[in-house]
Amino acid sequence: MSYFDVPAIKYEGPKSKNPFAFKYYNPEEIVMGKTMKDQCRFAMSYWHTFTYMGKDPFGGDTMFRPWDNTADEMEKAIERVHAAFEFMEKMQIPFFCFHDVDIAPRAATLKETNERLDVIVKVIKEEMARTGIKCLWGTTNAFGDDKFVHGAGTSCNATVFAYAAAQIKKAMEITKELGGVNYVFWGGREGYETLLNTDTGLELDNLARLLRMAVDYAKEIGFEGQLLIEPKPKEPTKHQYDFDAATVMAFLRKYDLQDYFKLNIEANHATLAQHTFQHELNMCRINGMLGSVDANQGDPMLGWDTDQFPTNVYDTTLAMYEILLDGGFTKGGLNFDSKVRRGSFQEDDLFLAYIAGMDTFARGLKVAAALLEDKVFENFKAERYASYKEGIGYDIIHDRVGFKELEAYALENGVTKNTSGRQEMLEMILNQYIMEV
Amino acid sequence: MSYFDVPAIKYEGPKSKNPFAFKYYNPEEIVMGKTMKDQCRFAMSYWHTFTYMGKDPFGGDTMFRPWDNTADEMEKAIERVHAAFEFMEKMQIPFFCFHDVDIAPRAATLKETNERLDVIVKVIKEEMARTGIKCLWGTTNAFGDDKFVHGAGTSCNATVFAYAAAQIKKAMEITKELGGVNYVFWGGREGYETLLNTDTGLELDNLARLLRMAVDYAKEIGFEGQLLIEPKPKEPTKHQYDFDAATVMAFLRKYDLQDYFKLNIEANHATLAQHTFQHELNMCRINGMLGSVDANQGDPMLGWDTDQFPTNVYDTTLAMYEILLDGGFTKGGLNFDSKVRRGSFQEDDLFLAYIAGMDTFARGLKVAAALLEDKVFENFKAERYASYKEGIGYDIIHDRVGFKELEAYALENGVTKNTSGRQEMLEMILNQYIMEV
Amino acid sequence: MSYFDVPAIKYEGPKSKNPFAFKYYNPEEIVMGKTMKDQCRFAMSYWHTFTYMGKDPFGGDTMFRPWDNTADEMEKAIERVHAAFEFMEKMQIPFFCFHDVDIAPRAATLKETNERLDVIVKVIKEEMARTGIKCLWGTTNAFGDDKFVHGAGTSCNATVFAYAAAQIKKAMEITKELGGVNYVFWGGREGYETLLNTDTGLELDNLARLLRMAVDYAKEIGFEGQLLIEPKPKEPTKHQYDFDAATVMAFLRKYDLQDYFKLNIEANHATLAQHTFQHELNMCRINGMLGSVDANQGDPMLGWDTDQFPTNVYDTTLAMYEILLDGGFTKGGLNFDSKVRRGSFQEDDLFLAYIAGMDTFARGLKVAAALLEDKVFENFKAERYASYKEGIGYDIIHDRVGFKELEAYALENGVTKNTSGRQEMLEMILNQYIMEV
Amino acid sequence: MSYFDVPAIKYEGPKSKNPFAFKYYNPEEIVMGKTMKDQCRFAMSYWHTFTYMGKDPFGGDTMFRPWDNTADEMEKAIERVHAAFEFMEKMQIPFFCFHDVDIAPRAATLKETNERLDVIVKVIKEEMARTGIKCLWGTTNAFGDDKFVHGAGTSCNATVFAYAAAQIKKAMEITKELGGVNYVFWGGREGYETLLNTDTGLELDNLARLLRMAVDYAKEIGFEGQLLIEPKPKEPTKHQYDFDAATVMAFLRKYDLQDYFKLNIEANHATLAQHTFQHELNMCRINGMLGSVDANQGDPMLGWDTDQFPTNVYDTTLAMYEILLDGGFTKGGLNFDSKVRRGSFQEDDLFLAYIAGMDTFARGLKVAAALLEDKVFENFKAERYASYKEGIGYDIIHDRVGFKELEAYALENGVTKNTSGRQEMLEMILNQYIMEV
Repeated sequence: MSYFDVPAIKYEGPKSKNPFAFKYYNPEEIVMGKTMKDQCRFAMSYWHTFTYMGKDPFGGDTMFRPWDNTADEMEKAIERVHAAFEFMEKMQIPFFCFHDVDIAPRAATLKETNERLDVIVKVIKEEMARTGIKCLWGTTNAFGDDKFVHGAGTSCNATVFAYAAAQIKKAMEITKELGGVNYVFWGGREGYETLLNTDTGLELDNLARLLRMAVDYAKEIGFEGQLLIEPKPKEPTKHQYDFDAATVMAFLRKYDLQDYFKLNIEANHATLAQHTFQHELNMCRINGMLGSVDANQGDPMLGWDTDQFPTNVYDTTLAMYEILLDGGFTKGGLNFDSKVRRGSFQEDDLFLAYIAGMDTFARGLKVAAALLEDKVFENFKAERYASYKEGIGYDIIHDRVGFKELEAYALENGVTKNTSGRQEMLEMILNQYIMEV
Repeated sequence: MSYFDVPAIKYEGPKSKNPFAFKYYNPEEIVMGKTMKDQCRFAMSYWHTFTYMGKDPFGGDTMFRPWDNTADEMEKAIERVHAAFEFMEKMQIPFFCFHDVDIAPRAATLKETNERLDVIVKVIKEEMARTGIKCLWGTTNAFGDDKFVHGAGTSCNATVFAYAAAQIKKAMEITKELGGVNYVFWGGREGYETLLNTDTGLELDNLARLLRMAVDYAKEIGFEGQLLIEPKPKEPTKHQYDFDAATVMAFLRKYDLQDYFKLNIEANHATLAQHTFQHELNMCRINGMLGSVDANQGDPMLGWDTDQFPTNVYDTTLAMYEILLDGGFTKGGLNFDSKVRRGSFQEDDLFLAYIAGMDTFARGLKVAAALLEDKVFENFKAERYASYKEGIGYDIIHDRVGFKELEAYALENGVTKNTSGRQEMLEMILNQYIMEV
Repeated sequence: MSYFDVPAIKYEGPKSKNPFAFKYYNPEEIVMGKTMKDQCRFAMSYWHTFTYMGKDPFGGDTMFRPWDNTADEMEKAIERVHAAFEFMEKMQIPFFCFHDVDIAPRAATLKETNERLDVIVKVIKEEMARTGIKCLWGTTNAFGDDKFVHGAGTSCNATVFAYAAAQIKKAMEITKELGGVNYVFWGGREGYETLLNTDTGLELDNLARLLRMAVDYAKEIGFEGQLLIEPKPKEPTKHQYDFDAATVMAFLRKYDLQDYFKLNIEANHATLAQHTFQHELNMCRINGMLGSVDANQGDPMLGWDTDQFPTNVYDTTLAMYEILLDGGFTKGGLNFDSKVRRGSFQEDDLFLAYIAGMDTFARGLKVAAALLEDKVFENFKAERYASYKEGIGYDIIHDRVGFKELEAYALENGVTKNTSGRQEMLEMILNQYIMEV
Repeated sequence: MSYFDVPAIKYEGPKSKNPFAFKYYNPEEIVMGKTMKDQCRFAMSYWHTFTYMGKDPFGGDTMFRPWDNTADEMEKAIERVHAAFEFMEKMQIPFFCFHDVDIAPRAATLKETNERLDVIVKVIKEEMARTGIKCLWGTTNAFGDDKFVHGAGTSCNATVFAYAAAQIKKAMEITKELGGVNYVFWGGREGYETLLNTDTGLELDNLARLLRMAVDYAKEIGFEGQLLIEPKPKEPTKHQYDFDAATVMAFLRKYDLQDYFKLNIEANHATLAQHTFQHELNMCRINGMLGSVDANQGDPMLGWDTDQFPTNVYDTTLAMYEILLDGGFTKGGLNFDSKVRRGSFQEDDLFLAYIAGMDTFARGLKVAAALLEDKVFENFKAERYASYKEGIGYDIIHDRVGFKELEAYALENGVTKNTSGRQEMLEMILNQYIMEV
């Protein structure tokens, strides 16, 4: 049976007027030595695509899906699996990402919840075998249920910490079972609402303890996926502990966990922290911490996580630029942590939205590759920093000089004339590449 | 001779209607075992108080000071010293902070600039001896001059790096000469305008090199003051490398510099990073990194550094709360990195503004002390986190359990009921303390 | 029967340590010629207090109320009425505000929904008669249901416009029935998500049509309450048409509706528009458009509507200052459009939160009254603008001069010296009043 | 003599690698029935191009221009005229915009300042005659000088009001003399720093008086240019009275000035008010108030007016879309109120920056024209709002129904099913047009 009255999406090229076709994403086309499929490693987010029904803080559901048309929770969960794999097949999406609660409804007890997960995991494995679609990463939802009202690993309630640990244990097990190549930690409620009632020192120590246990358990069960932490500055809590990439790196280094984790950077989380998407990727890259990417976009005029499908080609170009400079994805990929707008409530909007996101990233990939192949910015930078290749600059970066030598140099030589940073010219060249590649 | 037709400012108590009197700051009053003077360690910022003439991006000077009434630059610099010490004496401010360029005008060459500094340092030392006023910290201005257009320690021009090093060397020497108990690094232009032309990896490595040289040089000359880094997220550059406390800690830990530096937290820089002032102080405190404080406030509706005098008693209370929890200042203090509004251009506004700032912090100190003495929040927190004192919580924080034990616990016990965080009640208690102390 | 195991809340004065007592709100105390009760005209918001269960975009309910402990929707609605009036009685809250859907659950058809409303309205009237509690205002919820996905009065679907009109008609009728003294329009989804699909011209014309119909209908049924529009800049839509007070005034004046509506100003909506609460009240006051107030506060570091209970005494002081300057409330009041934090999920938190809000406004009222009685700011302003009382200033404000006369004046006289705006001094005086009143 | 060692800039097409050539701006190419030159009506801003030397709040000049190489202020002013016209000629810019103080330095008295203006106006007229370059608009700078510290038309000092009026009088006269087709009012300091010392009612009344005098004087001297008001929400003052387009329209309608003024919309001012550039243009268009445009861009992550050259093709496309929908410019144009980055301090950066801005707008124009010619969004909207073309929708927009009729309709018919808003699809179509036109 089929849930979508939409044909399989195919590449038709940039001039196509068919809304249900790719204009830029041509999966087998080679870009910088790999197929676009392998460069992008697109993943579907199970939650936004199959459990988001349109609620927002001011209104209820707007999306009433045919596969949800049953009162039985487990039956619904199974039909969602079928719908999800039909969707991914038609969309040519090679990966999916999931929270435990996305695939199986939470039951009254942990034991029953885990049993439900086992049932659904079996169904998913069948669909994976049938389609060849793979799991990019799994995670647990330790923030939605009311027991997590004060956090999970940072809860003031030790029994909630224990419960969260148990959830993560199970989520890691099923991620392994599904062949997931990463496991993600997003601290949904790991943060505070007010410092008046919060012991941040204890809470952060506990968060580190939880992560250390995860490292140990991954080793114990032989899970070889990459562990990832996903920064976000705020929402739902007033202050999320994993504010941005730098904050997470400070935390990992403090607790000596930096060798066990990489980062999962989300575009909209970057902008909520007042960083560009590229900035966060760049910070990860120069620190060797770039793991994977949540591909979406926010509205820079709005202060909450809108999780829109990425349609800004500047952002996707500069993101792919950093990813390619980092050598491209190994375990990571581009997961669309994006949801259709509340007003895009028809089933076929799911296709149109993923096409928009995939095409925008595909275009970004091609532009980024061209910029790198032509060394447009790299040559400019090489010349701009050339003074560190010789003379006093060479001495500086080889740690041969201290304040006294540098003062002697400055007293003798003053400074060499600066040259323009050429920002406007570089921005226009970027425009030209975006439009002409 | 006297520049200010204002009498020495004295404490007259909360009911006084005299604008030129302290209502809350009573220097010798004991609060939590120390005089208010020793708890607050107030400092005057030389730059905002004696070199800010009212310019903003849309207009010129509005402040025409009698002590500037000479064309000779060095004469003017000397008169400023006299005016500054008269001001501090009358205001009962025990410390000052300065950049090199605040006290002596930059000359055509480094050599001459250094000679000018030596002349003024001598005058300052005389005034210090006369008045007993001390130096809280010194720093260099390596951002204003056009040679620093692309940064100082992170400049793409190696000769500018050398020049900045030479400036810091001299500034450390004169800070030592003046008995300064701290030396501050604020990376005025250490950041980027666009990633299109920036090698962030090299620039951050170089910034670390510069700081390492500073550590070495301090040791060499026997400077025993605390080295401090001051975070700021943006302005003047689009992205400042020292974005916030967490970012600086990530940087220090990466380059193994964490034992040599502490942080100088500025209220308005915190808010520009979308953090509360208390948050940044709290993060420093729990990491043992709280050095000193730049006392001002921003306007939460505005996106630039307004450097207003602090007049919000919530902010000063919660700041002093963290500082007292940290054991109070040792080397650090409260430096008013605050400038009178452009429309407060009269000389006596300097007094009114400092009174406002000092009184607001004094009130904050007294409220914070009362809250701590009554253990209002501390008792609430102790009870809130009590589950970590025994049972599974005790095992967690003593690293006796892993995922398997915690899962077993959760399967067996589920979770204990959460209790309310009581945010509204705590905020009202804070109000009561603020108004009734 | 009783739902709250909390005694009636009484005034115990500023030194009381009893969390369940008023410290500042003393209902019968006279402030500026009226009782505090009459100055404040506090109202309970039915929705946040009795229908908000703790959901947020990342998690489910945390508040499980005893009065909701039934599966029958209408029975639950009736129990909520009883709980609500018990709560208001114990809290000494003299007014309530409501949306239609708060009091009675939406049914399958408009007809049945209206019948349900009639049932509940009867119950409410009984409770009103029993307690003396009154209705400050009513409104309709034309934004939550999925039919309003593209707006109500600004929907692209004309049948949705008709449905919204029908809802408003009924809501106006029941507001009249309940003796409501105002009727509020908050355009929950009157805005746009993207201009790519939106005809803003038609949508705004239609919004004006809807309001004109409301004016006509109010007249027809003899509803003598004040009609109010409540501005909000964004959320849930990307851009709400009623962005702020100025935008609403531009709209009303364009469509010649300015004589029929006043504004309902919400503190948190002001801050989302980057205005202070006082600013929005001030703009209403000087335009004669101040109707009523939604009393809450946002977090200036967060970009969404947090609807917190107001606990910032600066904000309540300056708000009451504008309200008193406007002559005090006539029909309007202070409606707590505030919800307990998600972590304050206990029933008694409702009391603690309302106490915090009422006490903070009561303190603000007293401080504002003292400032006005002492003419602290009014005298300062009178002197500051004195140049318009005579000479060329008098001529200007009496429209006796034009450019030529003013040029002649300027050529002849130049400008008189400006004097300081004294911002810091005034802020400190405000502090003193807040703490010492 | 020549100040720029750069050849005249010519169109070389999208594939050109020559930085000193237009890639998209082909002045004589016909787009929607007019030449690109006539559609864009580009203007140079005299101030940012010839008086901005690189200062920012944290540093001094970085731009040292050959034409400024004289100590004589008037000589310098004359050389700037020559440099400016050489620049515009080489850039093929047909218009310029200016403040009085941009072209001639303020002298000690108003009389002398006016005489200086007359001298320079004569030089400019010669250059205009020689080159055919025209004046788009003039204005006065009534915000930079210290006399305007508390505002100009809204100053608390009546003699400052008079002085501002005199300045505007002269600026209108020279704008007329130079054949300017518009006169702009940007209220640089018309706003407030704190409400504690501000009588907003009087200040806004006075602002209206000033504008009324300007209308009268324009009539008196036969100035037939369009009068324009330029909104900005904040900076330099905390709150600027002309916050955004809606605020200005509310003001004009209140004081019955709406027939005499249109708006000059600046992109970066829009974003500072949390609006998109397109939003502000759209609001002007549907109110018949679109006058002219200040073409620049801000950084959405920064909270101040960065005045960057516009290089975002999304923004320029959607801006040109509104302008074309409005019928194209009549008197208005695209004035680059944009400054080169502080690090782009070389003379040739002026060319590169203007090329970037002009090319980005030219591309935007072509994309917008293609979207309009293909009726991409217009057809979508026509169908989306089709329900207002017949039946109950027709009755609504023809004012034939009220609440009773609409309730009857809703009771009888309920609502017609909504259809998707298709935001993602539309955003992707926009992408395709941007890249494939």
